[in-house]
Amino acid sequence: MPKKIRLGILGGGGDSLIGVLHRVASFINDNYEIAGAVFNADFDESLNFAKEIDVPVNRIYKDFDTLVEEELKLPEDERIQVCSILTPNFLHFPMARKLLDNGFHVICEKPMTTTYEEALILQKAKIKSKKVFAVTHTYTGYPMVRQMREMIKEGALGKIHKVDAQYYQGWINTIIHDKKKRASVWRLDPKKAGISSCMGDIGVHAFNMIEYTTGLQIKSLLCDFNYLYGDNQMDVDGTVLIRMDKHVKGVIRASQVATGEENGLSIAIYGEKGALKWEQEKPNFLYKLSDTEPLQVYRPGHAYNSALSLDGTKLPPGHPEGIFDAMANIYLGMARAIRGEKYNDGEFPTMQDGVRGLNFIESTVASHKQGNIWVNLD
Amino acid sequence: MPKKIRLGILGGGGDSLIGVLHRVASFINDNYEIAGAVFNADFDESLNFAKEIDVPVNRIYKDFDTLVEEELKLPEDERIQVCSILTPNFLHFPMARKLLDNGFHVICEKPMTTTYEEALILQKAKIKSKKVFAVTHTYTGYPMVRQMREMIKEGALGKIHKVDAQYYQGWINTIIHDKKKRASVWRLDPKKAGISSCMGDIGVHAFNMIEYTTGLQIKSLLCDFNYLYGDNQMDVDGTVLIRMDKHVKGVIRASQVATGEENGLSIAIYGEKGALKWEQEKPNFLYKLSDTEPLQVYRPGHAYNSALSLDGTKLPPGHPEGIFDAMANIYLGMARAIRGEKYNDGEFPTMQDGVRGLNFIESTVASHKQGNIWVNLD
Amino acid sequence: MPKKIRLGILGGGGDSLIGVLHRVASFINDNYEIAGAVFNADFDESLNFAKEIDVPVNRIYKDFDTLVEEELKLPEDERIQVCSILTPNFLHFPMARKLLDNGFHVICEKPMTTTYEEALILQKAKIKSKKVFAVTHTYTGYPMVRQMREMIKEGALGKIHKVDAQYYQGWINTIIHDKKKRASVWRLDPKKAGISSCMGDIGVHAFNMIEYTTGLQIKSLLCDFNYLYGDNQMDVDGTVLIRMDKHVKGVIRASQVATGEENGLSIAIYGEKGALKWEQEKPNFLYKLSDTEPLQVYRPGHAYNSALSLDGTKLPPGHPEGIFDAMANIYLGMARAIRGEKYNDGEFPTMQDGVRGLNFIESTVASHKQGNIWVNLD
Amino acid sequence: MPKKIRLGILGGGGDSLIGVLHRVASFINDNYEIAGAVFNADFDESLNFAKEIDVPVNRIYKDFDTLVEEELKLPEDERIQVCSILTPNFLHFPMARKLLDNGFHVICEKPMTTTYEEALILQKAKIKSKKVFAVTHTYTGYPMVRQMREMIKEGALGKIHKVDAQYYQGWINTIIHDKKKRASVWRLDPKKAGISSCMGDIGVHAFNMIEYTTGLQIKSLLCDFNYLYGDNQMDVDGTVLIRMDKHVKGVIRASQVATGEENGLSIAIYGEKGALKWEQEKPNFLYKLSDTEPLQVYRPGHAYNSALSLDGTKLPPGHPEGIFDAMANIYLGMARAIRGEKYNDGEFPTMQDGVRGLNFIESTVASHKQGNIWVNLD
Repeated sequence: MPKKIRLGILGGGGDSLIGVLHRVASFINDNYEIAGAVFNADFDESLNFAKEIDVPVNRIYKDFDTLVEEELKLPEDERIQVCSILTPNFLHFPMARKLLDNGFHVICEKPMTTTYEEALILQKAKIKSKKVFAVTHTYTGYPMVRQMREMIKEGALGKIHKVDAQYYQGWINTIIHDKKKRASVWRLDPKKAGISSCMGDIGVHAFNMIEYTTGLQIKSLLCDFNYLYGDNQMDVDGTVLIRMDKHVKGVIRASQVATGEENGLSIAIYGEKGALKWEQEKPNFLYKLSDTEPLQVYRPGHAYNSALSLDGTKLPPGHPEGIFDAMANIYLGMARAIRGEKYNDGEFPTMQDGVRGLNFIESTVASHKQGNIWVNLD
Repeated sequence: MPKKIRLGILGGGGDSLIGVLHRVASFINDNYEIAGAVFNADFDESLNFAKEIDVPVNRIYKDFDTLVEEELKLPEDERIQVCSILTPNFLHFPMARKLLDNGFHVICEKPMTTTYEEALILQKAKIKSKKVFAVTHTYTGYPMVRQMREMIKEGALGKIHKVDAQYYQGWINTIIHDKKKRASVWRLDPKKAGISSCMGDIGVHAFNMIEYTTGLQIKSLLCDFNYLYGDNQMDVDGTVLIRMDKHVKGVIRASQVATGEENGLSIAIYGEKGALKWEQEKPNFLYKLSDTEPLQVYRPGHAYNSALSLDGTKLPPGHPEGIFDAMANIYLGMARAIRGEKYNDGEFPTMQDGVRGLNFIESTVASHKQGNIWVNLD
Repeated sequence: MPKKIRLGILGGGGDSLIGVLHRVASFINDNYEIAGAVFNADFDESLNFAKEIDVPVNRIYKDFDTLVEEELKLPEDERIQVCSILTPNFLHFPMARKLLDNGFHVICEKPMTTTYEEALILQKAKIKSKKVFAVTHTYTGYPMVRQMREMIKEGALGKIHKVDAQYYQGWINTIIHDKKKRASVWRLDPKKAGISSCMGDIGVHAFNMIEYTTGLQIKSLLCDFNYLYGDNQMDVDGTVLIRMDKHVKGVIRASQVATGEENGLSIAIYGEKGALKWEQEKPNFLYKLSDTEPLQVYRPGHAYNSALSLDGTKLPPGHPEGIFDAMANIYLGMARAIRGEKYNDGEFPTMQDGVRGLNFIESTVASHKQGNIWVNLD
Repeated sequence: MPKKIRLGILGGGGDSLIGVLHRVASFINDNYEIAGAVFNADFDESLNFAKEIDVPVNRIYKDFDTLVEEELKLPEDERIQVCSILTPNFLHFPMARKLLDNGFHVICEKPMTTTYEEALILQKAKIKSKKVFAVTHTYTGYPMVRQMREMIKEGALGKIHKVDAQYYQGWINTIIHDKKKRASVWRLDPKKAGISSCMGDIGVHAFNMIEYTTGLQIKSLLCDFNYLYGDNQMDVDGTVLIRMDKHVKGVIRASQVATGEENGLSIAIYGEKGALKWEQEKPNFLYKLSDTEPLQVYRPGHAYNSALSLDGTKLPPGHPEGIFDAMANIYLGMARAIRGEKYNDGEFPTMQDGVRGLNFIESTVASHKQGNIWVNLD
């Protein structure tokens, strides 16, 4: 294995949860070292954090543009190779674009951009750059999600005719029911948070999970949002009827007011010959249903799993790996791609996933705003 | 307690599953005796079955009209008091109507009628008759469903803002994917089975469960069916967006092609203060969710349950009661009503539930056929 | 099918839980009618109860001896054929013995007798009588327990090498921690309740479940009881090391102070090729484990189940049947035996199960009292 | 926060699973850097592995003694501060002893030593050294195990009267049933693997879990092993009756032939007022049972958890953390201790846990070999 990949980090300093997630994920398979960063908009805080976690302070930059400028001055074999973008959403697009244009690989937090239009522009930049790009639909990194994908690809379900995906959380209850809070929080301000709260933040994961596992594309949708209060302008709940083909239909359900739900992403795929079900909160159990055979429960690490699934498991069966490990699998695939090693479709979510996601989000808003009509995706 | 109630049975002879369910349910609380019957359209089979199960053959009649005619000749204290209608769907309406008009109480299998129009007519007949009428939305007889209703009534969830109900089965797969079978089976022939397969047979249970547990009414809906094949005219899968109020929304999902699902009815009700979830296949577990407290699992028979719930449990906690017991609870409530004893709302599903169900079914079909538009319920 | 079997009931009147269980179980498959009874030691209460549940009062007797005497005067085709003994434990033996001696079949609640010596005497009486005898180890009536037995019999697990059975309840906490209550309750008085509380009441079910499902016999055991307080003389908790063969070992764990446990009977059987696990509180799920294949979950009513299992299921998959249905299956097997019809081993627990159970209970007490030494069963 | 702690690694090179676990755990909270190592007995392999994972090769030593010698020559602020011992079991004792004697802190894989005698010697060395020592009972690092400990400490269960811990695996089936394999594998050779296989490798975790969560000490035990074959000398299965006090009893069950079990460690603690149950394979669910209240399910990351538990969670509720995170929590507590920061009992398993473990293992063997007699622990 070659030397560690030089990773730059944008955002994610201090107590940032997403910062911990990416940092740990990058360490897990011994593939990355943090070579430089702008951890924080405040340069001093950025420096202090670098000291705390022992990142060399000479490559902590005062801002993103400086990072790009200074790194480009370094010889290629010292220069940051890939940047993880963990900044506020509206910065994803300009940062990712500039990084690609300047020859850096990119790992971009979700949403990839704030609009579909930006996503398409970014896609062109990516193609032109010939760099590797990953968007962190983290949940696709779970071994049993990968197993789901591979089993479907190999025909375990036969022709798929129905999908049902859910992403239920309850955390926005503490905000939404309080008139002052819901008027002031950035999450519910379309100017700051983009056009969609619930569907943009979590519904899109359910969407991605469907396309990732089935290999099918959602062609059209009809969406109904719930704003819960007349003075709230952002969806906090929504249901989306989806069609993949004339006779292949399904539903995506997402909510931030599903009281008591923590991070309730789940998916069920039904086909002629069988079905597969998975829940994010019990990620190490994959259920295979049949009309005629006993239900089967697949577990990570067993030889009966696919190569793609086994690649994402580090310990023997019965040793629970979690979401850090799922993200680490994405970083692992990305490392292979950066090094030009062989890797497989499905090892990390790509630009294409990001583009599809924005297309989905804008379509749900369009459907809802026009009175719950059918809207085609590109 | 007075003497046993004299029960007449229409249909349900031989190996009929629904026959066993009603017969056992009627026995369970020692309230009923089978006084007469038309178990089968074939008189000889009816007689033989009566002998098998030791029902007096002198009150086995050759057909329904004869039963009514002959029973009316008997003195009131010998006459059948209540009839259970277990015949094919299209007979429910005429039989129920005639029974009510002639002074019999009625327990009617679902669907109560084949059209909403008939349901409204029957409702008038019922009111005029002053007789007791139950429609067998059996699942409402489970102690934990009753507990759900009572907890919501007492405000455990605060204002409800979202509901999600599912009824997934997979059994029609063996028919629908076979061109010959799907062309010939009565279930998928609109002339024989009515206007809806999936929504009429099972979706309506999910609908009823929502209204039963929340005490709210669904005001409008938008439905998308899946027929799966161009040559099939009946829904075998469908998703319904529902609205109970401007900001109270939800979804009903029903399928007969959810491969590997057995009898997957489940319901989740989310309110400002908490949520409740229940699954039919694990009926003795009721989950109470909170954003701030540990999840709670309610179990039947404990003193912490409501009176309505405890009334439906016969044994101490940990002794699983099942669907026969759920139906028996409905028969128990009905017995009290027939005897003029005190009973409570929620002890059995009424004519009103039947009427609402037909309104729902026809609305889903109307919505789908007009291109997935919003349709108001009455 | 012949006419209903004439059933006599001893005990079980009023609100008796065991009374409801047996009565309902006898009704469920349309095989029995209650022909006579001594529901209660108080003749008036017995009569009143008979009126309530519409049993002919002319065959309600003032006591057991009268019942036997009077019934014997009746012609054979009117006479009670089988009696269910639901009386206090110390009456089981004399009643069962007299019934057998006088040509009645017997369904006897557990424990069959209060001592092993009585059990052996009763066994002889049974053999001499040529009558059918069942002891109600109810849990063996569950379809998935039967499936477990059949799968093991057919070699699904290969050679068995380990068993682990548990029966945990918590109900005696409310008594045992209160000095007055524990001194006064009959359950903890060896003179009234027999030599063992926890092992005699519930541990013996776990014992029976092991022998029923595996077809193996427990040959020796070592037991440690917990009395919890120095002034308490009855076991409320105990663990039993068991040996079926030199290299086939296991453990039975029973408790009445397992706080919060309701009726936690479970069993796990491990063999060379696989394992089976089952829990009473989720009776319709049977887990098949393998070192190399995905875990399988067997569910009642599917064609993949054995004939013995399917015989115990009345409705299609997904319709939960419960403990009343388990007991009904035992009554069904008993009905076949009484009528001289073909039935299979395993349809109901026999005299032999009762004898083994008493042997087990006395052995656990002997082991504990002698300082936790190994004791052989016969 | 000070600079990273300089960590030395002994063993764990190449594809070693335990190596990955410790390395990742050390990275997760940004507290450690690998300063030196002997990854492998083969120096070249050690060097190659160091290159692969970018550890400076100048501090990769040819053997353990050289590492100690050379590191001692370095100034204190460059020298390795703590060593993780991941070598074969028989090396744990001499390495740990020498490290302590030379002023290094130690993180030692389990078993701490191969005999109780060694453990006592090591304990003295540790006390003399004033260094920090952790033994990796990894499972105590799970947030919900910590929550269990804290709830018990705060009296949530009242007086504890029963414990039941299980550690079931099935992996040795592939070896034990094959005469050649079982004769040749080092795991079943007492000369190589120590006096106990099943109890020494996994039973001891169950033992530790009981003492960790309850704060009680097991005072005596009676053990029965199963060797499964006459020609096998090592326990592959065993049950241990335990006593913490005259009326506080329990059981430890361990097996390596529990076919199909993966890593089935679980624990149940029953007290006067309630009970707590936890399973390693679903580590993020903690069950609180009560005789009178609904069962409660505690989940990590919620404010209702104790400080000790919350300290071990990095992400919000619903984001599953796993066994790498559990080990990382132990490394985190160790880091605080090494830096002389404030930390709490329970943040990592100590020398005392190691000593108790060896005492337990030797006692089980003594009990079994002497014919299943009671043996006192020190």
